[in-house]
Amino acid sequence: MSTRPGISELGLSTGKKARLHRILRRHGLGNGTALFLPYDQGLEHGPRDFFPNPAASDPAYIVQLAIEGGFNGIALQIGLAEKFYWDYAGEVPLVLKLNGKTDIPSDDRALSPVNASVAEAVRLGADAVGYTLYAGTPAQEDDLAQYRQVREDAHRFGMPLIVWAYPRGAAIEAKGGKDSFYAVDYAARTASELGADIVKVNFPHPEKNTTVPAAYEAAFTSQQAIGAVVRSANRTLLLVSGGERAGDEAMLDKARQSMEAGATGLIFGRNVWQRERAESLRFASQLQDILAKYPS
Amino acid sequence: MSTRPGISELGLSTGKKARLHRILRRHGLGNGTALFLPYDQGLEHGPRDFFPNPAASDPAYIVQLAIEGGFNGIALQIGLAEKFYWDYAGEVPLVLKLNGKTDIPSDDRALSPVNASVAEAVRLGADAVGYTLYAGTPAQEDDLAQYRQVREDAHRFGMPLIVWAYPRGAAIEAKGGKDSFYAVDYAARTASELGADIVKVNFPHPEKNTTVPAAYEAAFTSQQAIGAVVRSANRTLLLVSGGERAGDEAMLDKARQSMEAGATGLIFGRNVWQRERAESLRFASQLQDILAKYPS
Amino acid sequence: MSTRPGISELGLSTGKKARLHRILRRHGLGNGTALFLPYDQGLEHGPRDFFPNPAASDPAYIVQLAIEGGFNGIALQIGLAEKFYWDYAGEVPLVLKLNGKTDIPSDDRALSPVNASVAEAVRLGADAVGYTLYAGTPAQEDDLAQYRQVREDAHRFGMPLIVWAYPRGAAIEAKGGKDSFYAVDYAARTASELGADIVKVNFPHPEKNTTVPAAYEAAFTSQQAIGAVVRSANRTLLLVSGGERAGDEAMLDKARQSMEAGATGLIFGRNVWQRERAESLRFASQLQDILAKYPS
Amino acid sequence: MSTRPGISELGLSTGKKARLHRILRRHGLGNGTALFLPYDQGLEHGPRDFFPNPAASDPAYIVQLAIEGGFNGIALQIGLAEKFYWDYAGEVPLVLKLNGKTDIPSDDRALSPVNASVAEAVRLGADAVGYTLYAGTPAQEDDLAQYRQVREDAHRFGMPLIVWAYPRGAAIEAKGGKDSFYAVDYAARTASELGADIVKVNFPHPEKNTTVPAAYEAAFTSQQAIGAVVRSANRTLLLVSGGERAGDEAMLDKARQSMEAGATGLIFGRNVWQRERAESLRFASQLQDILAKYPS
Amino acid sequence: MSTRPGISELGLSTGKKARLHRILRRHGLGNGTALFLPYDQGLEHGPRDFFPNPAASDPAYIVQLAIEGGFNGIALQIGLAEKFYWDYAGEVPLVLKLNGKTDIPSDDRALSPVNASVAEAVRLGADAVGYTLYAGTPAQEDDLAQYRQVREDAHRFGMPLIVWAYPRGAAIEAKGGKDSFYAVDYAARTASELGADIVKVNFPHPEKNTTVPAAYEAAFTSQQAIGAVVRSANRTLLLVSGGERAGDEAMLDKARQSMEAGATGLIFGRNVWQRERAESLRFASQLQDILAKYPS
Repeated sequence: MSTRPGISELGLSTGKKARLHRILRRHGLGNGTALFLPYDQGLEHGPRDFFPNPAASDPAYIVQLAIEGGFNGIALQIGLAEKFYWDYAGEVPLVLKLNGKTDIPSDDRALSPVNASVAEAVRLGADAVGYTLYAGTPAQEDDLAQYRQVREDAHRFGMPLIVWAYPRGAAIEAKGGKDSFYAVDYAARTASELGADIVKVNFPHPEKNTTVPAAYEAAFTSQQAIGAVVRSANRTLLLVSGGERAGDEAMLDKARQSMEAGATGLIFGRNVWQRERAESLRFASQLQDILAKYPS
Repeated sequence: MSTRPGISELGLSTGKKARLHRILRRHGLGNGTALFLPYDQGLEHGPRDFFPNPAASDPAYIVQLAIEGGFNGIALQIGLAEKFYWDYAGEVPLVLKLNGKTDIPSDDRALSPVNASVAEAVRLGADAVGYTLYAGTPAQEDDLAQYRQVREDAHRFGMPLIVWAYPRGAAIEAKGGKDSFYAVDYAARTASELGADIVKVNFPHPEKNTTVPAAYEAAFTSQQAIGAVVRSANRTLLLVSGGERAGDEAMLDKARQSMEAGATGLIFGRNVWQRERAESLRFASQLQDILAKYPS
Repeated sequence: MSTRPGISELGLSTGKKARLHRILRRHGLGNGTALFLPYDQGLEHGPRDFFPNPAASDPAYIVQLAIEGGFNGIALQIGLAEKFYWDYAGEVPLVLKLNGKTDIPSDDRALSPVNASVAEAVRLGADAVGYTLYAGTPAQEDDLAQYRQVREDAHRFGMPLIVWAYPRGAAIEAKGGKDSFYAVDYAARTASELGADIVKVNFPHPEKNTTVPAAYEAAFTSQQAIGAVVRSANRTLLLVSGGERAGDEAMLDKARQSMEAGATGLIFGRNVWQRERAESLRFASQLQDILAKYPS
Repeated sequence: MSTRPGISELGLSTGKKARLHRILRRHGLGNGTALFLPYDQGLEHGPRDFFPNPAASDPAYIVQLAIEGGFNGIALQIGLAEKFYWDYAGEVPLVLKLNGKTDIPSDDRALSPVNASVAEAVRLGADAVGYTLYAGTPAQEDDLAQYRQVREDAHRFGMPLIVWAYPRGAAIEAKGGKDSFYAVDYAARTASELGADIVKVNFPHPEKNTTVPAAYEAAFTSQQAIGAVVRSANRTLLLVSGGERAGDEAMLDKARQSMEAGATGLIFGRNVWQRERAESLRFASQLQDILAKYPS
Repeated sequence: MSTRPGISELGLSTGKKARLHRILRRHGLGNGTALFLPYDQGLEHGPRDFFPNPAASDPAYIVQLAIEGGFNGIALQIGLAEKFYWDYAGEVPLVLKLNGKTDIPSDDRALSPVNASVAEAVRLGADAVGYTLYAGTPAQEDDLAQYRQVREDAHRFGMPLIVWAYPRGAAIEAKGGKDSFYAVDYAARTASELGADIVKVNFPHPEKNTTVPAAYEAAFTSQQAIGAVVRSANRTLLLVSGGERAGDEAMLDKARQSMEAGATGLIFGRNVWQRERAESLRFASQLQDILAKYPS
């Protein structure tokens, strides 16, 4: 399996290195791995995501959870970052999610509009910015155009750029679907080719191998698949996403395989906060036990 | 039910705080609640809205009504603000409505174009700006793009931003309609995630629960629904809209439930001025009697 | 009927007031009314409009007609203004028409592109600029966006803005048509809400009352209709357009009703110059006899 | 027939006058007429246009032909201007063609994208710029928008602007076709209204009079038609285009009628260079014999 | 056959000349020919291109291959250039590929979005930039618009511009396909007309002569075809692309015919690195043997 690349091998500017160091070495386990708490589902899916645990509707509750749970960062949209992060500024790294949208209109021509700038992330004291790139969307021209501006600004400000590399749109649905090995592998490579510092992917499903290009029709284990995805990302650090809430054992297994393959960490939201508070902390702690085995 | 957030908890800049203080403490009841008079229907629906009370066609009549009725602000488009507010400048806070459109073409891909800038609001001495965001519209990319510019300018000028968060467009029609609990709840959250200081919503209808996501299919009372909407807005102050003229008792009841749920105030137009002048003032006064019970 | 608003009541800047004074008090009858000669039909309809009177194809002929006929202004596109106005600069006020298009492609999604800037109007010594706003067009987002730029520039340069408020496009055709009372009334109000200093409308037809909103289905006289339109325009001065050539008596009657209703003046092109020169001057003089009865 | 307007009557700026003087008085016959050699067919139609005379594929061959043939100017796209004009700079006026496209995709919504700026024309020592305006195209909004920028830049730099006024697109096909009298007449007027200094048109075909507006259904001779087109262009100098190669006598006759009608000159490409070199020069000389009869 | 143009005949600026000199004289064979290694397939086709030789997934492996194989340059997207070129900066010229896209959505309206600027190429010490122009695409308006910006920036920074001139899109499919002689010839000419310094084309297939314009229906040998393409490119240096991996003899033959016709060099990716390392170097060396026979 691949070895996780070290920060010094990535060709990073001073500012990016400083901020990544803060995230990876001064927060969470401090061992070069990372566990992030994403909290933009209120925009992406609406308040329905909070019905399983109504307390999670309150951003203050979530920020406190991130701090208490020893997360390496919390991802927020601009509105919540402005209204809630000032209270806890510096206690947990802020990842300002720069784009986002509701899930109400059709996703066939998926595009996530930019809602805030890298300069605003700087103003809020963020340590990274996040951008959702819908790999393979029919709207890729617009997606890449707005991504480019974000990447250039992130370079200019020395701000690490985390790309949510999500296969999406009608063309992806016709070619294996959004979590096929083919789609996830291509998405990871796209992020790397286009200059992401960190890439967030869904765990690949090699068994979704119909209607995909021939190379992906063979029988791969999920360990082989996640290994290939990490190699496709090469010097882009890789985070595996939790996605919809599922059984804890399945999630922990996914986490183990990812770290074994050379991932840098995990970014789990609903699987963490769609349960009562003590349970959330317990599950986060189980994830950290896995991360602890992969220091660098 | 939720408690209304205080101005100091919102993470506001000095300029926004100063102007909100002016609106909430130096005008109207001065008790932290607000009653606004919107007057952009001549653009949004055309002069037909003035046929029930022809005097209301004259903007001077409306501005005088707002002053005499002790409203906390009046919302105007740029043209009327320039032609009529100079006469009464400072007597009632001006909310410059920045976008708007006619209702003549189809609303399937609803988008309300920006007609004036935050800088013009500053030039006219406004104390807030208004922006209509059509949550869930297929045109959300364009909507969010122009909203973002308004939000950034409002930040730059310290100008409070009131978002008319209106679910609208073909996708909303297919998912419960524009005043379903689902749609209103999502719209309120969207405004909060994206940085509104104040959000204006329609009163939610929990009984419109077919074709909505599963979480909203359950039986909720309207009091539960408006309570949830206020929580989804979290640190974004919430105003409830009057909408089309309806029976006074129904409107007052809506007002009571909203304030009980933690809303900051009301924004009623046609229900106020689509009747003879003395009646308008009497009805406004009834609304203020309710607001008086919810000081903060 | 309405009283025509005076220049001092309009909330105008110094520059706009100075130029409007020049148009309304130093040219034409000088009594606060206005008669304009529009000459952009060569672009809007093509040279076919000149076949009834071939001499009218020559812009020099038309400018001379405007001077001799004592018009308050002549409206030209940038090309003709540059090639012909230099010869007669200052002898008759120039209204630089900023947008325009051919009538060759379909009008379903009507939009009139901007061909010149307000700054160019300043450079050419114009006293006003003209903009065609297609009220109700499916392209209203683009229309309002380019209009906004024109309005802001007109404000910046103190240049009066005349809006050709024309209901147009597929949605208008489906709702009463472009000269129904409903459509003209809405167009006048739209111009006022959005900051026009002067609005040019077609004479309203209250008898076109099918497929219009209920409020407009009642029986109105044309005098009532034009009166309502003037009120909808409120502090925006109103000009009535001649449109296609029609019988002289009908045109003069339209002019009388408009002035009686509180209009500021008339803007007649084809009805003036689609006839032999002496006849043109005679007809213009008849229009001025009407204007003379409505000084302010 | 019309008299050709003199340079001093056109309201031109000093820079435009100086450059037009250079083209019309210091090159070619120097008698106020002009013969241009257009050479952008390699882009507009592809190398197939060079198959009848392979030598014409070489831009150096063409520039030498223009010099030796005593042309008043040569029209090139930016790439060829940069690679070949430096060798012959100043020996023949350069007309930098600013927009252009391949003919591979459908022409239904014809638009010719801008490939170079007026500033680049200045940098290359050009004496004029060329712009193809597709009169009547469904894409006229985009066409007029990019044209406007070119016109403003041409004004700013004192650079004469030659408009290739070509009726084109699905709407034109439905209304008489691209070389009907109706279409050519409207195109010439459009260029004049929108500020062209020189307009290049196809020779009008009055016999294509079905599906055109009523005014053009009458029987006109081609001499009457070209006369009307020259009048529609008024103070915009008119060039007649050669178009596809045709019989020499027909071309010479077209040239004679055009000059008789008041045209300023001719712009012939394929009819010149789609034959062997000596033949090209002989034909150019025949055209110049005609121009020599129309000094001004 | 044509003679390859020398650098001094191209009308180049000092900066472009200096960088081209570095590529053509200081690297590779140093005899005026060039062999480039393109490595943007990870973005254009996805990681599936690396399955035949998994080591090729690692950009470091490829950069080392380019250095060891004595290539004249390596083409990378911005992400890989930033992450990997710093390690080997200056050892092999960098061609920063400025645009690119995934092949997931439909190619009917092919457009390759710009992902990096010429300024970034300067910052990374690149000696050339690459741009994919999809000749004949229905999206040519957008393609030419973004190309124009790249060309102007390349001029401003003295950066050689290599155009990947690829016929593509629905209209090309309907007219002979993307590697017909017609399509390749037109693409080469388009690049030249629009200012490319170097053009990369596919080897033309004269036997694909159905549905092409009449001129291309005749029987041409492939040597005649590539000769014509070189002439169509005139003073734009021409590189022949390898395309999908094919038999070595066929590839070498293609290389020989291209150089014989006056091409400047070759740009072969998958044919080089989709095989084991020693084999890659051996094949590159065979290509260089051919280049060695065409010094200039």
